[in-house]
Amino acid sequence: MNQKPDNSKCVIAVDAMGGDYAPCNAVLGSVQAFHENQDFQLILVGRKENIISELKENNLDYDTDLIVHTDEVIDMHDHPTEAIKKKKNSSIVVGANLVKENKAHAFVSAGNTGAMTVSSIFGMGRIKGVSRPTLTAPLPNEKNGFTFVADVGAFVDSRPEHLLEFAILSSILLKEIHNIKNPKIGLLNVGEEESKGYKLTLGAGKLLKESNLNFIGNVEGKDIFKGTADLVICDGFIGNIILKFAESIIPFLKSTIKSYADKSIYNKIRAGLVRTPLKESLKNANYETQGGLPLLGVDGISIIGHGSSSPLAIKNMVLRAKDMYDKDLVNKLKEAIISYAEK
Amino acid sequence: MNQKPDNSKCVIAVDAMGGDYAPCNAVLGSVQAFHENQDFQLILVGRKENIISELKENNLDYDTDLIVHTDEVIDMHDHPTEAIKKKKNSSIVVGANLVKENKAHAFVSAGNTGAMTVSSIFGMGRIKGVSRPTLTAPLPNEKNGFTFVADVGAFVDSRPEHLLEFAILSSILLKEIHNIKNPKIGLLNVGEEESKGYKLTLGAGKLLKESNLNFIGNVEGKDIFKGTADLVICDGFIGNIILKFAESIIPFLKSTIKSYADKSIYNKIRAGLVRTPLKESLKNANYETQGGLPLLGVDGISIIGHGSSSPLAIKNMVLRAKDMYDKDLVNKLKEAIISYAEK
Repeated sequence: MNQKPDNSKCVIAVDAMGGDYAPCNAVLGSVQAFHENQDFQLILVGRKENIISELKENNLDYDTDLIVHTDEVIDMHDHPTEAIKKKKNSSIVVGANLVKENKAHAFVSAGNTGAMTVSSIFGMGRIKGVSRPTLTAPLPNEKNGFTFVADVGAFVDSRPEHLLEFAILSSILLKEIHNIKNPKIGLLNVGEEESKGYKLTLGAGKLLKESNLNFIGNVEGKDIFKGTADLVICDGFIGNIILKFAESIIPFLKSTIKSYADKSIYNKIRAGLVRTPLKESLKNANYETQGGLPLLGVDGISIIGHGSSSPLAIKNMVLRAKDMYDKDLVNKLKEAIISYAEK
Repeated sequence: MNQKPDNSKCVIAVDAMGGDYAPCNAVLGSVQAFHENQDFQLILVGRKENIISELKENNLDYDTDLIVHTDEVIDMHDHPTEAIKKKKNSSIVVGANLVKENKAHAFVSAGNTGAMTVSSIFGMGRIKGVSRPTLTAPLPNEKNGFTFVADVGAFVDSRPEHLLEFAILSSILLKEIHNIKNPKIGLLNVGEEESKGYKLTLGAGKLLKESNLNFIGNVEGKDIFKGTADLVICDGFIGNIILKFAESIIPFLKSTIKSYADKSIYNKIRAGLVRTPLKESLKNANYETQGGLPLLGVDGISIIGHGSSSPLAIKNMVLRAKDMYDKDLVNKLKEAIISYAEK
């Protein structure tokens, strides 16, 4: 590395090789974020020649000395732990290490979620007292806001104490970043009654009830869109399935409306009238505006985006990272974990 | 019981007290089914005086000697196992026992799902070789058909061999009742790779792979609506959450479209044009037409409906029960389980 990051300023590293449309969307989006909010230093991590040609092609103004060159790329099909061991000079490993080495405050990637999770945990390390970080995702709700779900897949197969950690960490995110003062927390279960569920939910329910969090009890699958709770806690296996199922709703609607339209000219006209109001109604469901999924519990800012992230999605991820830096999120997470351990 | 069911004919017992709109919807729907398809005997189970007044009010033609009177009602908030122990003269317990005693071939209820599951298992008994029955639910998919999900909540906390049973039983349902010749079976997981998941999915994946079923490997949350598999296998905890989440999509859409409409007169007009084509596009998502959720693996026909079942929903549940009787589903399930055990 030949650049000297200005440590009085927020430094955000972006994985230029991450996502299905890399380096194009990653470069376009992050440079756009930089031009909108000049108050941080942007480090692009990836193959220097590819990044430079992308910058030139789009006539983008960016100091190419700030690029951190990496040779290797972890692709979407690589096995996370194997990939980060083998591809030490990949953008995902190098980017997380920049945070570890205090050369950046945040790392943002639309690359392989598993590899990004593992690389952030190993690279940045965990906050003291956290055994399992969580990926926390916003889903739109009927109240024109969001229901956050944690964990959506940082880990599978959790224990009750992990679910408590997800709740502690995510509730700080909701307070500090999403201005939800005293987030209502629900435990995802098959019924409202305390006796419902199995070992994991029974144990987690007990811990949540004993905690000083604003725990409202069990919630069901239908409560996510209803917005019964601000934060829904579940293990990463279920959370990941729910997230991917939720992401498939809009493609499903598009496809069924298309089938309807294909039946007749009359249907085609009527279907044509559906798209805009439906899109506008569902604007909260647009992941591009949501700023990615933060991995909470690592000692740094790590944001993971959808593989198909557009430039807009990347831009919002970078701006979200900046917001987290400005609000000192990582230290607030540390304080929350310490304060909880002291009780 | 004073009636003598004609055992040369299919006998279907219906829980007149089941569901949020009982006895009204249950009585209306089942008598309507009876008038559409005279080829079975209908037994209404519940408070005789309430059923008779409902019949009179709607001027319905039904032989009231066929009513099986019960005093007690298990409501939606009753704890399933406790309720079936305490309320032995409830419609849910008596209805399942009619099947046990060979006085009916099928029992249909829109009442408490848990109580209906437990009552069917204890009352009708399990098919020999089945350790866990499954509730199998159809969800609409992009291919204008259905992706079936099993188990959606007969049990939580399953073992790998239970998931294999869900697959064996449900694939017979798909073949015999839904005319899907060689149903493609996927295992719900967080990724396509065989190594993904945890103990349960790894174990179930191995069993499914070794079986003679048409197992296509792991599928993700997004594959349900895509229709990658005809049948998606998961444990009842996840399946139940997915089902309730899926059922909340239409209310969520209605609510967000309403919020959009409320913003301006212009939006109101545009939103007004959305409803009909959207409803027609999503007609496969209408649970009323789906005929309820069959509980597969018990020694009889048991169909469980949505608490808010309309008369149309009840009618279709009764007709589905008749179809299962006609196609000798229970014996085909028995054969499949025996044939599997012999391998």
